[in-house]
Amino acid sequence: MKKLLDDPARAVEDSLAGFAAAHAGLVRVHGLDEPSGPLFVGRADGAVAGKVGVVSGGGSGHEPLHAGFVGDGMLDAAVPGAVFTSPTPDRVAAALRAADTGAGVLAVVKNYTGDVLNFETAVELAQAEGAEVATVVVDDDVAVEDSLYTAGRRGVAGTLAVEKIAGAAAVRGDSLDQVAAVAGRVVANVRSMGVALTACTVPAVGRPGFDLGDDEVEIGIGIHGEPGRRRVPMAPASEITRLLVDPVADDLGLAAGERVLLFVNGMGGTPSSELYVVYGRARRLLEERGVTVARSLVGSYVTSLDMQGASVTVLRLDEELEGLWDAPVRTVALHW
Amino acid sequence: MKKLLDDPARAVEDSLAGFAAAHAGLVRVHGLDEPSGPLFVGRADGAVAGKVGVVSGGGSGHEPLHAGFVGDGMLDAAVPGAVFTSPTPDRVAAALRAADTGAGVLAVVKNYTGDVLNFETAVELAQAEGAEVATVVVDDDVAVEDSLYTAGRRGVAGTLAVEKIAGAAAVRGDSLDQVAAVAGRVVANVRSMGVALTACTVPAVGRPGFDLGDDEVEIGIGIHGEPGRRRVPMAPASEITRLLVDPVADDLGLAAGERVLLFVNGMGGTPSSELYVVYGRARRLLEERGVTVARSLVGSYVTSLDMQGASVTVLRLDEELEGLWDAPVRTVALHW
Repeated sequence: MKKLLDDPARAVEDSLAGFAAAHAGLVRVHGLDEPSGPLFVGRADGAVAGKVGVVSGGGSGHEPLHAGFVGDGMLDAAVPGAVFTSPTPDRVAAALRAADTGAGVLAVVKNYTGDVLNFETAVELAQAEGAEVATVVVDDDVAVEDSLYTAGRRGVAGTLAVEKIAGAAAVRGDSLDQVAAVAGRVVANVRSMGVALTACTVPAVGRPGFDLGDDEVEIGIGIHGEPGRRRVPMAPASEITRLLVDPVADDLGLAAGERVLLFVNGMGGTPSSELYVVYGRARRLLEERGVTVARSLVGSYVTSLDMQGASVTVLRLDEELEGLWDAPVRTVALHW
Repeated sequence: MKKLLDDPARAVEDSLAGFAAAHAGLVRVHGLDEPSGPLFVGRADGAVAGKVGVVSGGGSGHEPLHAGFVGDGMLDAAVPGAVFTSPTPDRVAAALRAADTGAGVLAVVKNYTGDVLNFETAVELAQAEGAEVATVVVDDDVAVEDSLYTAGRRGVAGTLAVEKIAGAAAVRGDSLDQVAAVAGRVVANVRSMGVALTACTVPAVGRPGFDLGDDEVEIGIGIHGEPGRRRVPMAPASEITRLLVDPVADDLGLAAGERVLLFVNGMGGTPSSELYVVYGRARRLLEERGVTVARSLVGSYVTSLDMQGASVTVLRLDEELEGLWDAPVRTVALHW
């Protein structure tokens, strides 16, 4: 394993320390130094009084998800776990507390057994303390119904859209019920599917998580390297993109005349030049269905460490979701 | 080779087509379809009347450099060549023409023999047509004095700082001489050095550009995978970072009390979590010298296809450069 790390056991903390120092104007990382409270990433300027808080989190290794989305118009706090490991309930509870100024908090949870359980425990704790907390579970991955880590579908890159749009609804002044409702509407209308060209290497393990031949790829890969639908021989980008777009569009039941956000996401080790090739192919496939790609995002936002590969996420838009997507956002990783 | 491409020979054009479609509000890619003129990337809204134009370009494979920096506050046009190959003079000349509204154009050129030659030819052509054109050559890489591609030092990630600051000076209303002078001041005060953990694979070649053992890294790597200073055994991030920061800081002659921009750049295949570890280590090394890290940038901006690795760039700041760095920028890859 060759990685730019010191102690693999402290990879998350060392990275967060650099992140905090580089972006002190935007974020504050709580709990890095001892003695201190639980580890989570909050806004440098603290929670916004009167606004519904929006909090997310999960295992590390998917950066910039979630810490890179803390800031105006998106998340109030993000909770990192160890690499590919759910954050503990005390961390989640601390983040919920920090994001709560009395208007309630929405917790955005990717559908993994550990995340769902730990967030549930933390939410109960926060509620027992008097906070109003609602939860939305993201399960956008159409690849598999259950997996090593999940009952039901996995939450993957579509999570970004849920966080962005819920964050914008909160800024707009929506109540907790309203923010939760719009987040739920995103979940109902977003689907994703990914492909791995290589496996990723968890620092503390030191070797790739699975073997993939020099001439095969894994279609429907999960963001922890968990198995997808099937392995196929390496093929041109057009063919691979079709294997991602078709299941996504079919599952969404996209009809001619609809408008969508098309998000092509890199898994961490794939250069942006290749992501744009996939984007161009995916866009054409959607247009062949009569679908209008009204909004676009291309980049490595929901990653799997150093994995090479990409995912395609499609969100069905309506006027409200489009407006909330367009609303200003100012975070480390998303800014417009 | 596993890459998300269709025809490796059309990798640049296919990628640019996706880029153009994804960012139609910001950029326009000229010359993609036949019959058409030379290939270059301009602003969607065209050149800004009365403003000095700023143009850059070079071989592809370093994305988002340069096309990702086209837009308000940075470049007016970018000229892509084939992968790791200088753009032809006709492309450069077309970009210079597009960026010229009568106030003159600054060409930002990375110091590679082919780039220098082809830009020179294009600049002469544009001048013969009556345009005022100045050139600044970036040679920030302290690793080697000459290389396979270069007489003198290579231009690497410091180019981003030159483009950002020259672009801001042009927006401020500086004359061509003034924009060229401030760009020259950035070149005089910026230094970089990189490390490769893996080689990159040029699509049309199909295999890694060099062999690097499972337990060694190349210190002082160039952005085309050309050799650096030496190979060393893989080491913790702190040690590797010192091998990058010390030559950069020494060459700059940084003194206690100075303020700098610290830019940790990913080579394309390295996840941001590792870049933040390097950033944290580099920052501490600079602080140990009494230097203040006043501005920061962390991300994969000047890449070498899928290479794993990172570079450290340090720019000595003064009040003017700091203000120009902070000035608003709105491009695909940089936005604040």
